Amino acid sequence: GFAKVDHHRKKRQGSPEVIFGEGKTSTQIIDISRAMMAKKENILVTRVNKEKAEAIQRTLPDFQYHEIANLLFMMNSGEPVYSNGYIAIVCAGTSDLAVAEEAALTAEAYGLEVRRFYDVGVAGIHRLFAHIDEIRQATVSVVIAGMEGALPSVVGGLVSHPIIAVPTSIGYGANFQGLSALLTMLNSCASGISVVNIDNGFGGAYNAVLIHRLANKQK
Amino acid sequence: GFAKVDHHRKKRQGSPEVIFGEGKTSTQIIDISRAMMAKKENILVTRVNKEKAEAIQRTLPDFQYHEIANLLFMMNSGEPVYSNGYIAIVCAGTSDLAVAEEAALTAEAYGLEVRRFYDVGVAGIHRLFAHIDEIRQATVSVVIAGMEGALPSVVGGLVSHPIIAVPTSIGYGANFQGLSALLTMLNSCASGISVVNIDNGFGGAYNAVLIHRLANKQK
Amino acid sequence: GFAKVDHHRKKRQGSPEVIFGEGKTSTQIIDISRAMMAKKENILVTRVNKEKAEAIQRTLPDFQYHEIANLLFMMNSGEPVYSNGYIAIVCAGTSDLAVAEEAALTAEAYGLEVRRFYDVGVAGIHRLFAHIDEIRQATVSVVIAGMEGALPSVVGGLVSHPIIAVPTSIGYGANFQGLSALLTMLNSCASGISVVNIDNGFGGAYNAVLIHRLANKQK
Amino acid sequence: GFAKVDHHRKKRQGSPEVIFGEGKTSTQIIDISRAMMAKKENILVTRVNKEKAEAIQRTLPDFQYHEIANLLFMMNSGEPVYSNGYIAIVCAGTSDLAVAEEAALTAEAYGLEVRRFYDVGVAGIHRLFAHIDEIRQATVSVVIAGMEGALPSVVGGLVSHPIIAVPTSIGYGANFQGLSALLTMLNSCASGISVVNIDNGFGGAYNAVLIHRLANKQK
Amino acid sequence: GFAKVDHHRKKRQGSPEVIFGEGKTSTQIIDISRAMMAKKENILVTRVNKEKAEAIQRTLPDFQYHEIANLLFMMNSGEPVYSNGYIAIVCAGTSDLAVAEEAALTAEAYGLEVRRFYDVGVAGIHRLFAHIDEIRQATVSVVIAGMEGALPSVVGGLVSHPIIAVPTSIGYGANFQGLSALLTMLNSCASGISVVNIDNGFGGAYNAVLIHRLANKQK
Amino acid sequence: GFAKVDHHRKKRQGSPEVIFGEGKTSTQIIDISRAMMAKKENILVTRVNKEKAEAIQRTLPDFQYHEIANLLFMMNSGEPVYSNGYIAIVCAGTSDLAVAEEAALTAEAYGLEVRRFYDVGVAGIHRLFAHIDEIRQATVSVVIAGMEGALPSVVGGLVSHPIIAVPTSIGYGANFQGLSALLTMLNSCASGISVVNIDNGFGGAYNAVLIHRLANKQK
Amino acid sequence: GFAKVDHHRKKRQGSPEVIFGEGKTSTQIIDISRAMMAKKENILVTRVNKEKAEAIQRTLPDFQYHEIANLLFMMNSGEPVYSNGYIAIVCAGTSDLAVAEEAALTAEAYGLEVRRFYDVGVAGIHRLFAHIDEIRQATVSVVIAGMEGALPSVVGGLVSHPIIAVPTSIGYGANFQGLSALLTMLNSCASGISVVNIDNGFGGAYNAVLIHRLANKQK
Amino acid sequence: GFAKVDHHRKKRQGSPEVIFGEGKTSTQIIDISRAMMAKKENILVTRVNKEKAEAIQRTLPDFQYHEIANLLFMMNSGEPVYSNGYIAIVCAGTSDLAVAEEAALTAEAYGLEVRRFYDVGVAGIHRLFAHIDEIRQATVSVVIAGMEGALPSVVGGLVSHPIIAVPTSIGYGANFQGLSALLTMLNSCASGISVVNIDNGFGGAYNAVLIHRLANKQK
Ligand SMILES: Nc1ncnc2c1ncn2[C@@H]1O[C@H](COP(=O)(O)O)[C@@H](O)[C@H]1O
Ligand SMILES: Nc1ncnc2c1ncn2[C@@H]1O[C@H](COP(=O)(O)O)[C@@H](O)[C@H]1O
Ligand SMILES: Nc1ncnc2c1ncn2[C@@H]1O[C@H](COP(=O)(O)O)[C@@H](O)[C@H]1O
Ligand SMILES: Nc1ncnc2c1ncn2[C@@H]1O[C@H](COP(=O)(O)O)[C@@H](O)[C@H]1O
Ligand SMILES: [Mg+2]
Ligand SMILES: [Mg+2]
Ligand SMILES: [Mg+2]
Ligand SMILES: [Mg+2]
Ligand SMILES: [Mg+2]
Ligand SMILES: [Mg+2]
Ligand SMILES: [Mg+2]
Ligand SMILES: [Mg+2]
Repeated sequence: GFAKVDHHRKKRQGSPEVIFGEGKTSTQIIDISRAMMAKKENILVTRVNKEKAEAIQRTLPDFQYHEIANLLFMMNSGEPVYSNGYIAIVCAGTSDLAVAEEAALTAEAYGLEVRRFYDVGVAGIHRLFAHIDEIRQATVSVVIAGMEGALPSVVGGLVSHPIIAVPTSIGYGANFQGLSALLTMLNSCASGISVVNIDNGFGGAYNAVLIHRLANKQK
Repeated sequence: GFAKVDHHRKKRQGSPEVIFGEGKTSTQIIDISRAMMAKKENILVTRVNKEKAEAIQRTLPDFQYHEIANLLFMMNSGEPVYSNGYIAIVCAGTSDLAVAEEAALTAEAYGLEVRRFYDVGVAGIHRLFAHIDEIRQATVSVVIAGMEGALPSVVGGLVSHPIIAVPTSIGYGANFQGLSALLTMLNSCASGISVVNIDNGFGGAYNAVLIHRLANKQK
Repeated sequence: GFAKVDHHRKKRQGSPEVIFGEGKTSTQIIDISRAMMAKKENILVTRVNKEKAEAIQRTLPDFQYHEIANLLFMMNSGEPVYSNGYIAIVCAGTSDLAVAEEAALTAEAYGLEVRRFYDVGVAGIHRLFAHIDEIRQATVSVVIAGMEGALPSVVGGLVSHPIIAVPTSIGYGANFQGLSALLTMLNSCASGISVVNIDNGFGGAYNAVLIHRLANKQK
Repeated sequence: GFAKVDHHRKKRQGSPEVIFGEGKTSTQIIDISRAMMAKKENILVTRVNKEKAEAIQRTLPDFQYHEIANLLFMMNSGEPVYSNGYIAIVCAGTSDLAVAEEAALTAEAYGLEVRRFYDVGVAGIHRLFAHIDEIRQATVSVVIAGMEGALPSVVGGLVSHPIIAVPTSIGYGANFQGLSALLTMLNSCASGISVVNIDNGFGGAYNAVLIHRLANKQK
Repeated sequence: GFAKVDHHRKKRQGSPEVIFGEGKTSTQIIDISRAMMAKKENILVTRVNKEKAEAIQRTLPDFQYHEIANLLFMMNSGEPVYSNGYIAIVCAGTSDLAVAEEAALTAEAYGLEVRRFYDVGVAGIHRLFAHIDEIRQATVSVVIAGMEGALPSVVGGLVSHPIIAVPTSIGYGANFQGLSALLTMLNSCASGISVVNIDNGFGGAYNAVLIHRLANKQK
Repeated sequence: GFAKVDHHRKKRQGSPEVIFGEGKTSTQIIDISRAMMAKKENILVTRVNKEKAEAIQRTLPDFQYHEIANLLFMMNSGEPVYSNGYIAIVCAGTSDLAVAEEAALTAEAYGLEVRRFYDVGVAGIHRLFAHIDEIRQATVSVVIAGMEGALPSVVGGLVSHPIIAVPTSIGYGANFQGLSALLTMLNSCASGISVVNIDNGFGGAYNAVLIHRLANKQK
Repeated sequence: GFAKVDHHRKKRQGSPEVIFGEGKTSTQIIDISRAMMAKKENILVTRVNKEKAEAIQRTLPDFQYHEIANLLFMMNSGEPVYSNGYIAIVCAGTSDLAVAEEAALTAEAYGLEVRRFYDVGVAGIHRLFAHIDEIRQATVSVVIAGMEGALPSVVGGLVSHPIIAVPTSIGYGANFQGLSALLTMLNSCASGISVVNIDNGFGGAYNAVLIHRLANKQK
Repeated sequence: GFAKVDHHRKKRQGSPEVIFGEGKTSTQIIDISRAMMAKKENILVTRVNKEKAEAIQRTLPDFQYHEIANLLFMMNSGEPVYSNGYIAIVCAGTSDLAVAEEAALTAEAYGLEVRRFYDVGVAGIHRLFAHIDEIRQATVSVVIAGMEGALPSVVGGLVSHPIIAVPTSIGYGANFQGLSALLTMLNSCASGISVVNIDNGFGGAYNAVLIHRLANKQK
């Protein structure tokens, strides 16, 4: 993760600004980043491949790169402060890691404590049960799966908090680049599941951030 | 709605049990309902057409029927008690009313205060702006739209709480029974939007209920 | 089922002939049936609605009708004899009953012992676990599910025998008449699952019959 | 743009001939261009990538290349003369720039005054409102959007002139290469919107040119 | 048509208000109509079947019903006044008549002169050529076709004014309820064609009205 | 074409054997070709790109390569002899050339006289009319078109012989790699048109060969 | 069939005119028929259900109705005269009969001898082999199949004349109203197969008529 | 195959563990393999291209690579022992070889005797008949086909054992990357066929393994 968990809660400095890196040149990303640095904001850049990241880091060396998640992060306003409780990022297989880490690092950049439960897909359901109690105590879960995308349905039946389901494009043949997992999640017979776009780890996390904040507001 | 807003909050008796009425006979629904009545639970039955509802009411006259929403409700454990704050049910056109009311009445059955903002579609955006301040103060919004389904994107850019988007099957031709609105919502460039199945007013509301409860828990 | 389980195994008289009733008139079905009766064969007619069944029964009163499964059956060559072991028919929800019973009664007509495990969908996975040991001891399972169709993936991870997965058309919206469940099953990350057409309970059972017979051959 | 706005209106020399560059070799484009040059016609070549453009420019150095729009333009019959009024090119995000500039430069090549309103997508609707008065006074708007493609619906509700909507292929996952935006635009509940093919900036502009000319004819 | 062509042009009283009748009850339509009658506006109601129309006419006998087009029209502010020039409504086959008349009557209700060119599909292209000169002199054409939807491409190559193409759902098999014609029109290699939703005769006409008005404005 | 038209008709030596080159290595193609050479058969290899063709020609220099059509041809049994009459290969745009030449050269390899009518698409229908009399006198036409694929419908209405329609994958956006043209052709309202797979120039020609031979048989 | 085979060949009186009955009222069909009767033409009306047919026959009793094929036929110019040779109508299952008879009766109405080979689907391939020699001697085959639509591929490999393949909409689930059979036929690896629209028995026969006439011309 | 058929049956050491190689780095595969080697398990890695395979073999030279099937295999627990009987791997064309060999080598790795029947597609059905008796005596067949995918239907009608059908992505145009073959197989009118995902040779074989073991259990 981006930061060590700080249980002594300093005052949080504000949310990061987010740049969608796909289809932007390194020059464009550097320009936007500089404007944000001037305002002392934390900066998160998603969908940046290694080559582009390195080009950006040569100019702006304060950016940390997370290769698996294709993310750049720069802290300008102080470390994000963890709130009460945590969210769960649950994913089915190792192939879903890029999306899962995009989600996890996004949530951390927004100052949430994240617990990762990876490789707990439904075809070996004991792996999920080994962690279900810890998942149950999260405020909200982001559940990520490719292939047939059945994991959110199973988790949804076991927890009582809201689930944001993220289909991934992992699969082949009749998977149709994630369509199969997307339809599965939209048709889930478990209640309390809502869905974001295929591979949208950022979006899954962002919804979790908004919900988690509501749960922390009144304290 | 099901109940007058009760600002003096009695103790709430528990959530209703929900029966998905589509594809069940009136006899099956009566049988399941009786089992629940025995346990003194509130009962919500969704997707019941008028004819089936009347057959059920002949045997179980305590059921109230909401024709627009195709819902039956029976109170057995006392009136639901409203919590702090309210959720917004926002919908684009009058044709979306059945789905919007399925959502609104579901949320009320779970003891939430609901504010309705109907017929505020994006083709006449001033209608939305007239209500945007009141929408902004909701805990969470359920935003419902058919045709091109653009409303969640616009609302999403104007509020900072989570949005559950519900596409409806209203439309014709290249609408493909709601596919158009569904894709629109999944591809929204506004952040903080997650999506449920086409016409799934119940699901939209249920997610809102879970989120609203999180926001109320700590008090 | 069609017959009481006969643990004293008489000699089995042969498999039933099968008529696909959809799109055939009652007259056509009667004609074909008579030809089969002449040859002393058991007859199974699938996809026959109540009205058509009653018209046929008026002429051929030896036909038994199973309304839920839309099946007619007539015994002409003696009761089918049960073989060693049983197959499991597992289904997710009560709405899948028509398909599940088409499968179960087909298998029984072919002389197999069938054990039914109904309403054990993944959104309440404890229901499945309550029966998993008995399912595990079956020769083969026919696993039937609509909506998101996730049940075969979960069962597939828990048993080591072959699974025939049958998607059903139960669902709405982004379900697209069973496409969602079909894709889920084809993309399952559990091994040992093969799939038949949407709502094809007969086909699911027929594959199970062929496999079960192989397992019984050598004795 | 191609030309400085000339408010002193010289006599216009005629419309450019247009070559669809995709799938043509540089040699083929040079040959066709030469034939047109002989007839003293302005030439517009769309869908030419940088490499191909440079190869053509080596032989025909009078071609100007617009890299963002992938367009070559050559003036042979005198500068196009601006007519009364202007058209608006409105686009949602910076990723839609290539299509927007294909449209804008096409319209300019046909002698229209173009006003550009870029990066005014619906997720931050204040950006659109800042310019709406100027957009309203255009003869016709070409409204370009990718992702969910909701911008034409919102603009359509705010202006009373015709809108040509151009979906772009910008997006990922359930965007399906622009299908999402295309369906949105075809299903728009705002009146006065017609649609061209995905990424067809040229076509959007060409329709605007025809309409703008009608509005200028009688003067 | 709704009105005799009035070549002596009286002052026009304003555009009709339009009600989309599909999915509205006769009571709802009557209520909305009464509000409009109070403001002395002409009223156009589209997508009203015969039965619903008659129910409405019993209460509001001033409504004229056009059965082929499924349209109700009521004149409250004086007959629409025809402007200079005319638009062409061109359609491929007699099966497209309902959509063509929805378009034609809409345009007339907005005070345009309409010339109808019906049954001139591309499989017998001489039928089109017999009328092409008169079509050419229109301000704008609304071209309507089902089946393969090729008519706009052919007309587009023969006229130099803008074309609004309307696909219809007429066809069977691989027509997929109008998808075939829709794709044809979006992919047209003729320039100057833009497209509205399947069966959207109203929308086709409304775009034509906006364009025709631009052409008439300055006089 | 492969051969000069020989109006003095020698005895024809037999049809070429055909190898589908796509997905085969140059070694595999050489091996199959050698077996055929041993039997003195003419050989046609379709779907061979330049690089692969050159590798094959280094070993088997008697192969002639047609780059536009991606075809190799080798004459081993004497030049094909032209029969009475000719077939027409008609295509819409220059982008369809690869498919058109695959068709034309295939037909020539089978000993048919081919007349080419290229770049006669429906958006400029005078181009087709300039040649229609010569097309009419063909035995059969192979009509090839991409984009909206409307050409077969127009030709079908003008000639009375059978038409084999070949959709191509030329287009972009809502063209979906040739799906648009394919659907257009299947839905044609002209009679006497049948369709082969997208880009299947070989198949279009082969059907024409079979039909042309029937017409020549009895003489 | 419509007529007894007449081996003494009278002079043939001309082809029937064809009316596509679907979507036309009985009054419209009667009017068009009367115009044709005046010109002494044979008349074929396709896609007429029983009720509509009877209404038409009450006014025009000379029409013969074929219920299975939904066809009306009236002879006005003398019986069609059979030409040399015959065509084969081959169909997979009894459910395809309506389409097969639409094809067969159409061909007979055009004066062709038709041989019917019904219920010879690939799942019991001996049924096809029993007739293959007679099929081989046809001029052309119309091969009709629903479900998986594999029959044309098998026939195509066994005969050397042209095959017109007609997919039918018979099937359920993943059949998608005939899409499955349509794709199968377009992708056939047998050569000499071209395809018409789903359920288009008329179109299949009409192509066969054109081809058969070519084969008969020269004699 | 992996091993010579050993008719003297040594004690079999257990099934191989399987790694799905696609999307895993060579380092990841090496790590997982080492863990398995420690437990003396046979290891099968599917979906490994040549380059990756060579990188792995440099570190773990005991891996055997099968280039056509993209498979790595390492024997650690002794050679698999063949059971009674054999399974048939039947495939339509040489382009399906990669999938067929993935299936065949998988089955051999699990200790089954495999008989290969390749290039026996339905367009030349005599090729299939030449081998049908040997196929009939298999316990189970894995039938693999691309293009139109008709082979399982034909085989299914000729054998009485279970068939696992594997569609491949071989084809072009309206094949849609294997969708055509997939639909064909799901809609097969032959009984006793079940289907796995497109190109899933492993899955097809794995199902066959489970079935074959059942048939061998009791001995
Ligand atoms: N990986 C991602 N997927 C989807 N949306 C994203 C992603 N990363 C950032 N965004 C959204 O894109 C917005 C920034 O877009 P832009 O202005 O194009 O950089 C952010 O505010 C986010 O809402
Ligand atoms: N419900 C069903 N779904 C799919 N196939 C069926 C069904 N019932 C019967 N069949 C198959 O249809 C065949 C009989 O078809 P038919 O000759 O049309 O009656 C049987 O041999 C079965 O293979
Ligand atoms: N970017 C574009 N997208 C779609 N159509 C275009 C584009 N550019 C040019 N065209 C059209 O293509 C025609 C020229 O096509 P061609 O003869 O192939 O060069 C022009 O007349 C335009 O109608
Ligand atoms: N371009 C092509 N498109 C479709 N089918 C082809 C093509 N070229 C050859 N064929 C067919 O493929 C067969 C040869 O396939 P193969 O045995 O794989 O070389 C020939 O007999 C033709 O029927
Ligand atoms: Mg839950
Ligand atoms: Mg927001
Ligand atoms: Mg298993
Ligand atoms: Mg407007
Ligand atoms: Mg034009
Ligand atoms: Mg014709
Ligand atoms: Mg053949
Ligand atoms: Mg069989």
